[in-house]
Amino acid sequence: MNEKELNRLINGISKLESSALYGGDFLLSWEKTYDEILTVLKTADALKHLRAGNISPRIFDSGLAVSIFRDNSTRTRFSYASAANLLGLAVQELDEKKSQIAHGETVRETSCMISFLTEAIGIRDDMYIGEGHSYMKEVADSLTEDFTSGLIPQKPALVNLQCDLDHPTQIMADTLHLINHFGGVENLKGKKVAMTWAYSPSYGKPLSVPQGAIALMSRFGMDVTLAHPPGYNLIEETETIAADFCRQSGATYSRTESMEEAFEDADIVYPKSWAPFSVMQQRTGLLKAGDDKGLVELEKDCLEQNKKYMNWECTEDLMKKTKDGSALYLHCLPADITGVSCEHGEVASSVFDRYRKLTYQEASYKPYIIAAMIFLSKTKNPAAKLEDFIKNTPKRSY
Amino acid sequence: MNEKELNRLINGISKLESSALYGGDFLLSWEKTYDEILTVLKTADALKHLRAGNISPRIFDSGLAVSIFRDNSTRTRFSYASAANLLGLAVQELDEKKSQIAHGETVRETSCMISFLTEAIGIRDDMYIGEGHSYMKEVADSLTEDFTSGLIPQKPALVNLQCDLDHPTQIMADTLHLINHFGGVENLKGKKVAMTWAYSPSYGKPLSVPQGAIALMSRFGMDVTLAHPPGYNLIEETETIAADFCRQSGATYSRTESMEEAFEDADIVYPKSWAPFSVMQQRTGLLKAGDDKGLVELEKDCLEQNKKYMNWECTEDLMKKTKDGSALYLHCLPADITGVSCEHGEVASSVFDRYRKLTYQEASYKPYIIAAMIFLSKTKNPAAKLEDFIKNTPKRSY
Amino acid sequence: MNEKELNRLINGISKLESSALYGGDFLLSWEKTYDEILTVLKTADALKHLRAGNISPRIFDSGLAVSIFRDNSTRTRFSYASAANLLGLAVQELDEKKSQIAHGETVRETSCMISFLTEAIGIRDDMYIGEGHSYMKEVADSLTEDFTSGLIPQKPALVNLQCDLDHPTQIMADTLHLINHFGGVENLKGKKVAMTWAYSPSYGKPLSVPQGAIALMSRFGMDVTLAHPPGYNLIEETETIAADFCRQSGATYSRTESMEEAFEDADIVYPKSWAPFSVMQQRTGLLKAGDDKGLVELEKDCLEQNKKYMNWECTEDLMKKTKDGSALYLHCLPADITGVSCEHGEVASSVFDRYRKLTYQEASYKPYIIAAMIFLSKTKNPAAKLEDFIKNTPKRSY
Repeated sequence: MNEKELNRLINGISKLESSALYGGDFLLSWEKTYDEILTVLKTADALKHLRAGNISPRIFDSGLAVSIFRDNSTRTRFSYASAANLLGLAVQELDEKKSQIAHGETVRETSCMISFLTEAIGIRDDMYIGEGHSYMKEVADSLTEDFTSGLIPQKPALVNLQCDLDHPTQIMADTLHLINHFGGVENLKGKKVAMTWAYSPSYGKPLSVPQGAIALMSRFGMDVTLAHPPGYNLIEETETIAADFCRQSGATYSRTESMEEAFEDADIVYPKSWAPFSVMQQRTGLLKAGDDKGLVELEKDCLEQNKKYMNWECTEDLMKKTKDGSALYLHCLPADITGVSCEHGEVASSVFDRYRKLTYQEASYKPYIIAAMIFLSKTKNPAAKLEDFIKNTPKRSY
Repeated sequence: MNEKELNRLINGISKLESSALYGGDFLLSWEKTYDEILTVLKTADALKHLRAGNISPRIFDSGLAVSIFRDNSTRTRFSYASAANLLGLAVQELDEKKSQIAHGETVRETSCMISFLTEAIGIRDDMYIGEGHSYMKEVADSLTEDFTSGLIPQKPALVNLQCDLDHPTQIMADTLHLINHFGGVENLKGKKVAMTWAYSPSYGKPLSVPQGAIALMSRFGMDVTLAHPPGYNLIEETETIAADFCRQSGATYSRTESMEEAFEDADIVYPKSWAPFSVMQQRTGLLKAGDDKGLVELEKDCLEQNKKYMNWECTEDLMKKTKDGSALYLHCLPADITGVSCEHGEVASSVFDRYRKLTYQEASYKPYIIAAMIFLSKTKNPAAKLEDFIKNTPKRSY
Repeated sequence: MNEKELNRLINGISKLESSALYGGDFLLSWEKTYDEILTVLKTADALKHLRAGNISPRIFDSGLAVSIFRDNSTRTRFSYASAANLLGLAVQELDEKKSQIAHGETVRETSCMISFLTEAIGIRDDMYIGEGHSYMKEVADSLTEDFTSGLIPQKPALVNLQCDLDHPTQIMADTLHLINHFGGVENLKGKKVAMTWAYSPSYGKPLSVPQGAIALMSRFGMDVTLAHPPGYNLIEETETIAADFCRQSGATYSRTESMEEAFEDADIVYPKSWAPFSVMQQRTGLLKAGDDKGLVELEKDCLEQNKKYMNWECTEDLMKKTKDGSALYLHCLPADITGVSCEHGEVASSVFDRYRKLTYQEASYKPYIIAAMIFLSKTKNPAAKLEDFIKNTPKRSY
């Protein structure tokens, strides 16, 4: 354990105004103040240091951490499970197929029923445009009401594990990776980050990663460029947010339809596929209508459309255009690697291989980001609590 | 934490004769003495108070709590998980689809194989008339034998999470709700409770809730009325038990084929759909025979039959007939609410809305009822153990 | 708790050279030295004694134990869950259907992604000849690299829960059963063990149990006889290993195509069905090719072939041929019992009934074997740690 670094982090946390995190949820990063964002990042890093030093940051003797996955997941599932376990909670998955929710139960009722002894609820709901966030908001509001009226003895901390708008646990992990890679949050100022679309032979990938990325990275004084082919727009609200944050932090925001232009002199590149906005909208309609034939046709059309932009690949040539030819490559994983996971994909295998370990490191922060979100919702004075751990040194492994 | 109330509960527990609960199972409420029933209710309430006071009633450092769900479940699943976790056990589900049980393994063998380090087993098996309880009994007897012969180092406490005869964790939760709502078990004496059938567009709902309700509520001196349309009889044995208990507790038991009559002057109403007994019997046969076509026809017939009694709905008009027009409405949830979860259902939405919070409160007792059942099977002197918690104040959330 | 026996076990452990277990995996028993094997057996027995004496051998405050089951399982699943829980770990299953692994993710990537806070990974992968062990080796090597390069803060202990070559947790449990049944490891010397094929109406049973059995039991000075009909050979490598070990331990190794011959004067019999080697090879090809029709035909052919050897059943007559007519009967369960789980099976019901409890006892060791494997990978000085438990007596149930 790097105790000096840990003390530096705790000292930083003690100076930030983050009292609104206590009792709160984490749904969209742009609803949080800069101080709150920084508090989550520093707390995540502190929890990582504590565990590395064999200090257990457990704050619960018992309690459930419920997970609701409306889409497949490996790394987020394990990150959530790890975070819950680290704090002393047991994961209980709400598998909507095994439940009675189909029998006409309301969101309001289910929320209450799963929360009597529950400290945290993590939800992934990213399949429908205009729905994931609304659902989470409905759960959050309902639980706040239940807590206020005394129906449940604690308000579970709701954590957005990916919705239609944002993927905050991912992007916060990406950001913590950037901070540690560049040696401090102050060093992000003036860096140029390129969030770009990339070709993939798969279909229907959510828009929440690019949306979340531009909306968060714009807060640290980084010049943000979004690049995508025509028709691959993001939800407009998120671009407005990103542009506003850039302005506030004294940086620039721009959009281009050229991957080359975005990579030019970039310090950081995040080439990643997503579905065209209009396709996601049609898909939402077809999924709701249960129109399987329509979905098959839409998938075919979409893949055809994607193919027009097969040259949107993160190649060695493109990487050479970045700052000193050595921009930091980011990816939320799994990446579509050309010649490895598909014939043509998001990234050339030699590029990916060079950054492989760094992308794994990037992913390694996610459990601690989630743990920090729960910890901060449950801990009134986080700096003092973290200091207690250092003083009392409860062991994680005996 | 209300320490005075907690001490009153513990004092009550210390005066009851409940030694047979130690090492035992909880399969059917009517197999338990009145003292034992009261001990479970008071212990559940005490555990709820302890947790509310941030005292952890954990009694295990490790151990499994196995669950076997042969029917879908949300609230019972979460209640069981919460109860196990509160006491320090980890839930391990026996998913019969992922197991090798199909390969000719006997109940006796499986019971032993899942029990080597297991402290509790919760089973839901309510699909077949004449089967759920028999299966649980077979598991319980087998485990008792294994424990006696030294094959397993502890006898897991078996908890009936719903069978064909009874749903004790539900009805005990309902009862604890009644006790706290009316200000004490002594206040239940003389209350009139109407357990009535209600219309639902769904099919095949188990009989265990009404059966369990009349068999348990009859023990507290409440006048019990069972109401249902012709052909919707319960398993006869359970009505005999209820009538006997009413007689013993100085109350009356009656049956009627009129919902209005049952609601007349009722203090408590429990309008809830269930399948006709003869349909459940036929269904058991068809399910066993794997006769899918027969099942579809039976469902159609049954839904047609139900439709004849669509006027069996808990409406505002009916509620007006109850004592002072304000009987307490009970439901095990989810309810079929007219205009909300279906076109015509068990209850009018305005009635349900008025009692919504109270039904959620009713549900909130279930985790503690289950925890109490396990706790009492594992604790020789429950009053002393509960006092220890108050003295030592182990924290639930640090 | 038998403290004298416990001290004898710990004393034994302290004298064995087992330092290579620390930080290691348990994939194949024949990769381990005799001292290491004995250390696992004695540690498993010590953990069982500790728990029986209500001492908790927990060594973790938090941490995940990941399980990956590529084949159905009841007893191994529960054994793994029990072992993990006993040591303080939470089980998190990697359900490959719910994950994004299908999206082209590599073994290397998944291994890292599930391991950031993971202390153990148990894998069952026994469906494909030439694959299960290779997969586990790939995971193990990848994690060793990730740990060395600092990507993960601890190396998860990999435990083979059954592969195409070996089933070490099963066979180690069988062996511990033998040691305790015969009153000490020294008493196994000179015992005659018959590992024989037996008829079963089922199909495609893995070869890992017989392979693992002959490869391990040959190390204790037992005379090993393998018996099977023509065409039911094991993977040759495992027979070579068994024969070599027999030679080293001063015992004999033989193979026969007669069940009678193998049973003659045997002290221990292990009659158990497995698929013909050539069928397993063809099946591997068909499964990979997704050739469902071919699989159906192969199953038909295989069952036809099996039928030729329906007389390979462990009957009372055969049992009479064993030493004093009372050899110890072993089975990994569930057994195909004639007249119980099938018309004609591996064993007569009267034979099985006589040994039923002993086979359950045999199974009871598996959770402790798995716990010992994880414990030894995580504990530098196991004897000292076990002594600490005796001194500090942390309670398992309060």
